[in-house]
Amino acid sequence: MDTAAQTLTDAAIQAALDAKTKPAGALGRLETLAAQIARAQQTLAPQVQSCRLILFAADHGLAVEGVSAYPQAVTRQMAANLAAGGAAATVFARTLGVHCQIVDCGIAGPPLGAQGVLAARIADGAANSLKGPAMTPDQAHASLALGAQLAQAAPEDTLALGEMGIGNSSAAALLIHKLTGLALENLVGAGTGLDGAGIAHKRAVLAAVAARSPARLGPIEALCAVGGFEIGAMAGAMQGGARAGKLLLVDGYIAGAAAACALALEPAIRDHLIFAHQSSEAGHPHLLAHLGADPLLKLEMRLGEGSGAVLAWPLVKAAAAMLRDMATFAEAGVSGRTS
Amino acid sequence: MDTAAQTLTDAAIQAALDAKTKPAGALGRLETLAAQIARAQQTLAPQVQSCRLILFAADHGLAVEGVSAYPQAVTRQMAANLAAGGAAATVFARTLGVHCQIVDCGIAGPPLGAQGVLAARIADGAANSLKGPAMTPDQAHASLALGAQLAQAAPEDTLALGEMGIGNSSAAALLIHKLTGLALENLVGAGTGLDGAGIAHKRAVLAAVAARSPARLGPIEALCAVGGFEIGAMAGAMQGGARAGKLLLVDGYIAGAAAACALALEPAIRDHLIFAHQSSEAGHPHLLAHLGADPLLKLEMRLGEGSGAVLAWPLVKAAAAMLRDMATFAEAGVSGRTS
Repeated sequence: MDTAAQTLTDAAIQAALDAKTKPAGALGRLETLAAQIARAQQTLAPQVQSCRLILFAADHGLAVEGVSAYPQAVTRQMAANLAAGGAAATVFARTLGVHCQIVDCGIAGPPLGAQGVLAARIADGAANSLKGPAMTPDQAHASLALGAQLAQAAPEDTLALGEMGIGNSSAAALLIHKLTGLALENLVGAGTGLDGAGIAHKRAVLAAVAARSPARLGPIEALCAVGGFEIGAMAGAMQGGARAGKLLLVDGYIAGAAAACALALEPAIRDHLIFAHQSSEAGHPHLLAHLGADPLLKLEMRLGEGSGAVLAWPLVKAAAAMLRDMATFAEAGVSGRTS
Repeated sequence: MDTAAQTLTDAAIQAALDAKTKPAGALGRLETLAAQIARAQQTLAPQVQSCRLILFAADHGLAVEGVSAYPQAVTRQMAANLAAGGAAATVFARTLGVHCQIVDCGIAGPPLGAQGVLAARIADGAANSLKGPAMTPDQAHASLALGAQLAQAAPEDTLALGEMGIGNSSAAALLIHKLTGLALENLVGAGTGLDGAGIAHKRAVLAAVAARSPARLGPIEALCAVGGFEIGAMAGAMQGGARAGKLLLVDGYIAGAAAACALALEPAIRDHLIFAHQSSEAGHPHLLAHLGADPLLKLEMRLGEGSGAVLAWPLVKAAAAMLRDMATFAEAGVSGRTS
């Protein structure tokens, strides 16, 4: 991340890829991924060996405005389901050798007390952003610090970041709108599965929330205005993880909002962020285009929880191994092109 | 595969998926994959635990006509590189816990003698299809039988099928053309990386080969006319593997030609074939559309060796685990939709 210290040039990385026993460019997106990993780790022998899913759960006061197809209690219920290993992301993680860490950073109601959930509660849910700020500046900084601390403390070289929070596709849409200036109407989608009338209502509520603050906001101001704690924590984890030299797997739309926030705070972490999958949530392609990101997987998923980030992990491991371990034409005694 | 014995309905599979703790359909393509695996294994608790890459290497007499960017010797050199673990597919396999089996089913020249290469040579390379048949009917049946035997003998529940053979994107294009009636001009691409002039030459050579036999051929006749041994062996492995209840991961364009051949021989194996990735070889989208196949990965790869099939393996394992192991709303005590 210290550009002055970077000595590994893009040309050197490309030459290393082209020397491998395959037609030049024949591994497509895996080659651009390997090049990114090489830039992030500043080595032609990148080490990508272990992955942890850090999943931040928190609630949103805005949920009472009917912006989700599910009741707010689902955040709490799903945190317990995740901790028990029954949710999609935890099943995927177990299957693919990814360690799971479930973090309550602000679930509404009393502390969860479920085994396997780390209690790191910033507040009893973010406040309703239609009535006032979702959080205070202190809470925004605390959510960033929480994520950074957990990311830096993790022993793994790669972190997948996930979230659970009923209402958080609304917070994500608002945050992206305030940070990037992208039109709010293009950023509002079905979330967990609203129908047409539900999306129209969500659109009206979010427009009213957006009207409460200036058109464009900086990252801390935007977090304060629209939330939430899990988004701030993911943004902090991206910053802290990148500073610790780790790769960060960015899940779908909500994690993408956190990435927009982290990049606004610290643009130099860009090479450490690997965009894992393209969500079918309507606003995600707009965000990805704005960030110039080309995600690895396009599987029409829209679940969150870090599920797409975990599924992309084997591709990241494979890309690093390719650059590190594949034989060159010279090493393997393989002939080059004749034409 | 015995449709009379199938008692697990599509409705039952869908109900099981919709009971899982996620919004209905939120796992997108992973859900249709899980449903396919359930149909293939006829259970709502599918077991996908282990994977073997069987990689068939063979040569093509047509290579002397200048249809590839690389010399024929590369087949032999790469077989040794694969066996030594230095090629992309073997690096990916090692990284993702996939066992590798490299099979010489007809590399030109003397037997390879490389450690880790199974010698199962049908002939000293397929014959030049521009001058006569690529193989005899006995050789076509022998290649199918070889693949079937190795697939049935493998202890793994899932097989990734790969190939190495300079000139085999030509054989694949011709085979698909003869089997499906798709226009040859849409099926000819850059292979390992021909330039425009090279593709024009390849197109002319393949048109001349195609003119030597009737417009449409059955699978055995097509194998005899255009080859090759590795394509026949992959087709046989698909049939034999499916009969043994295994899932078969179909790699890119060459493996896709083998799938077209296997499906022409035995349409009932369809649910056992999982199309792993969409190659950037020009003809692959045409073949996939013809087969009604929606591959899992779209990474602009065009390497062969089973590299895309191996990369898709974690997704298949994860999809099966999702259907088998995820908690239902009832089991986890999670509330359903409010709207």
